[in-house]
Amino acid sequence: MSRKFITLLTDFGQQDPYVAIMKGVIHRIAGEVTIVDIIHSLPPGDISKAAFVLKESFPYFPEGTIHVCVVDPGVGTKRKPVVVVTKHYFFVGPDNGLIWPSVEKENDYKVYLLDNPKFFLPKVSNTFHGRDIFAPVAAYLANGISPEEIGSISQDGLQRLLLPEPIISGNVITGRILYIDRFGNLITNIPSHLLELHMKEKSIQVEICGQAIQGIKRTFQEVGLGEFLAYVGSFGYLEIGVNMGSAADLLIKDQEKFDAVTVKVLDFSANNS
Amino acid sequence: MSRKFITLLTDFGQQDPYVAIMKGVIHRIAGEVTIVDIIHSLPPGDISKAAFVLKESFPYFPEGTIHVCVVDPGVGTKRKPVVVVTKHYFFVGPDNGLIWPSVEKENDYKVYLLDNPKFFLPKVSNTFHGRDIFAPVAAYLANGISPEEIGSISQDGLQRLLLPEPIISGNVITGRILYIDRFGNLITNIPSHLLELHMKEKSIQVEICGQAIQGIKRTFQEVGLGEFLAYVGSFGYLEIGVNMGSAADLLIKDQEKFDAVTVKVLDFSANNS
Amino acid sequence: MSRKFITLLTDFGQQDPYVAIMKGVIHRIAGEVTIVDIIHSLPPGDISKAAFVLKESFPYFPEGTIHVCVVDPGVGTKRKPVVVVTKHYFFVGPDNGLIWPSVEKENDYKVYLLDNPKFFLPKVSNTFHGRDIFAPVAAYLANGISPEEIGSISQDGLQRLLLPEPIISGNVITGRILYIDRFGNLITNIPSHLLELHMKEKSIQVEICGQAIQGIKRTFQEVGLGEFLAYVGSFGYLEIGVNMGSAADLLIKDQEKFDAVTVKVLDFSANNS
Repeated sequence: MSRKFITLLTDFGQQDPYVAIMKGVIHRIAGEVTIVDIIHSLPPGDISKAAFVLKESFPYFPEGTIHVCVVDPGVGTKRKPVVVVTKHYFFVGPDNGLIWPSVEKENDYKVYLLDNPKFFLPKVSNTFHGRDIFAPVAAYLANGISPEEIGSISQDGLQRLLLPEPIISGNVITGRILYIDRFGNLITNIPSHLLELHMKEKSIQVEICGQAIQGIKRTFQEVGLGEFLAYVGSFGYLEIGVNMGSAADLLIKDQEKFDAVTVKVLDFSANNS
Repeated sequence: MSRKFITLLTDFGQQDPYVAIMKGVIHRIAGEVTIVDIIHSLPPGDISKAAFVLKESFPYFPEGTIHVCVVDPGVGTKRKPVVVVTKHYFFVGPDNGLIWPSVEKENDYKVYLLDNPKFFLPKVSNTFHGRDIFAPVAAYLANGISPEEIGSISQDGLQRLLLPEPIISGNVITGRILYIDRFGNLITNIPSHLLELHMKEKSIQVEICGQAIQGIKRTFQEVGLGEFLAYVGSFGYLEIGVNMGSAADLLIKDQEKFDAVTVKVLDFSANNS
Repeated sequence: MSRKFITLLTDFGQQDPYVAIMKGVIHRIAGEVTIVDIIHSLPPGDISKAAFVLKESFPYFPEGTIHVCVVDPGVGTKRKPVVVVTKHYFFVGPDNGLIWPSVEKENDYKVYLLDNPKFFLPKVSNTFHGRDIFAPVAAYLANGISPEEIGSISQDGLQRLLLPEPIISGNVITGRILYIDRFGNLITNIPSHLLELHMKEKSIQVEICGQAIQGIKRTFQEVGLGEFLAYVGSFGYLEIGVNMGSAADLLIKDQEKFDAVTVKVLDFSANNS
């Protein structure tokens, strides 16, 4: 695998120089690598949201890409810094569950403990391992150093993090919201194949926060301005949106607690049969 | 033309992974290209503002740059995905008016309909053509594939979008605000050559939202702290600003509706002559 | 020194195309250079905060990096555009104090006045020297043009800007807040070596805004959720934070005036001896 690309996924925001400092550290070691920002504005410490974004983004990158993932509320404590090597990618970050949903379906992956300070910055702080450990390790990987040399193989496996799964009961699927995007679209955990398996598109009703939405639409313009629609979004999950508006603003009072909201999908044709 | 650069202009924001996913798709196909973000925080669906930003930004980029422009409220409907080829640049995006102001003054440009799925991602969604169509097409262009191969020539021309023009009547120019920037500076649609043609710099008065501003200044420091000034901005248009303050915050109550505000420029020397 | 990297540090924000236009200008001249954003969301015109960010970020970049720094409230007035050359780096920007704290400890640096319009854009505006002067000059430097050719050596030295220093009096250190980051952590101007010199870690008490905080912690998880802690941050200064919370939100009413807040550090063991 060529190792020309490094991605960065953090909760460091964009109003501070932390991300730039990681890029400086990387380029001092690996001058030729191309760095791509995946996301930095995650809610501080929100490992679940980070894990969802990583899982939905990483497969679009070239083979050999080194994904550096630093949402790390336990920085400086005993959670382990790791490199995970799959058939197509590298993942570098704290072993706190963030990486798990991205690799759990791989047949074969290896976990290496980052325990060789030779590949860290000379002085390792207690609060910024993104700069001191993960950035230099990613850069050395990009330079072709083998994971075996950088760390020692771990037999423990990875910390697991289970994103909520939809529940199917009779002709009802009950799901949750995994992510709210800039447009206020609500991305649920209900994959399209569940809808296809269990339901007929035209007779579907989606219920969320007291709002009933009929049918699955293909495009936003199939409903009027300001109207709700349910559709299969670009990640392959059921989403709820509003044509030229924000479903989140209209439906969800406390958007920081969106993960408590349930989404029900019913098939009325099944109901009547 | 060398095709080493791709720019991205979208309304996808920076708090979601959508832009990063487009970059991943591009780099999988064109590993050597350099990607530059023009803007992503446009108001969702605001084609006029997008068109203004594109028009004022694209000429600063190297010859052969491929400008990918995705503000696309009609995604998935019958609006056409296109590549526009001018003497110096490529523009890739939906044909919804966004590209028009950037090419209307070109003597010669060609429009190609993107109708060959060979250059799309294998599965095209209804809601994210930035990822599925425009990113891969831009990457294939960067790899040197000809527009003729990627699409079929269109005889229809482009969807037009007319940015508002200033109106000259006697010794009064009446214009509008096209853009409010981070500093709260108001960028009007009145180009400096109109001022030069019709007015004497020192006797100009600008009127906006009940505020009268005397003369055209060269720098912000020619007025006191917190005072208004009118000046020719870096895009070559009349702008209204405040020294170490925000003209937008002081003058415009509903900044989402700034395009309804009129700006009048009067020449008092002409008035008196 | 190889000159492969250019960094950008501005107060232009990320919601406008100003930064992208600078990148376009750079790439037209220097097609092969890699550009890294340090920060763009600085408060408009805040030279002190810009100077702090530059000082803490620039040393992480590769030797030969060209740091372009444009927080420039005096743009178009008589403040001078300069290139500063140190042993390891170039700094390009207005001579308004921004660069001073980053070079004051260098044994030897040279200041060049940018007075040769051959290296500017053909038309120089009064309000956007980032685009018209600093971007092209940085690009020509990246292309290997010598500073001597681009500007003329200045004997005047640089405009000084003094970041506030902590005051030591008996067993009390009195400092200030230099920076509040995304997490609401308060970065003080008290370097860790002062604590080591004058105090015993366990008997330290930090006082800020009526809140007393005991001891210096290593990691956030050494205190309970929502509790305050004092620690040595990743820049090597005393910081005040809250485990999974924002010290800034809890302590500082008017965060725009954080620089008026004092931080006191006392050593109780010394007190009692």
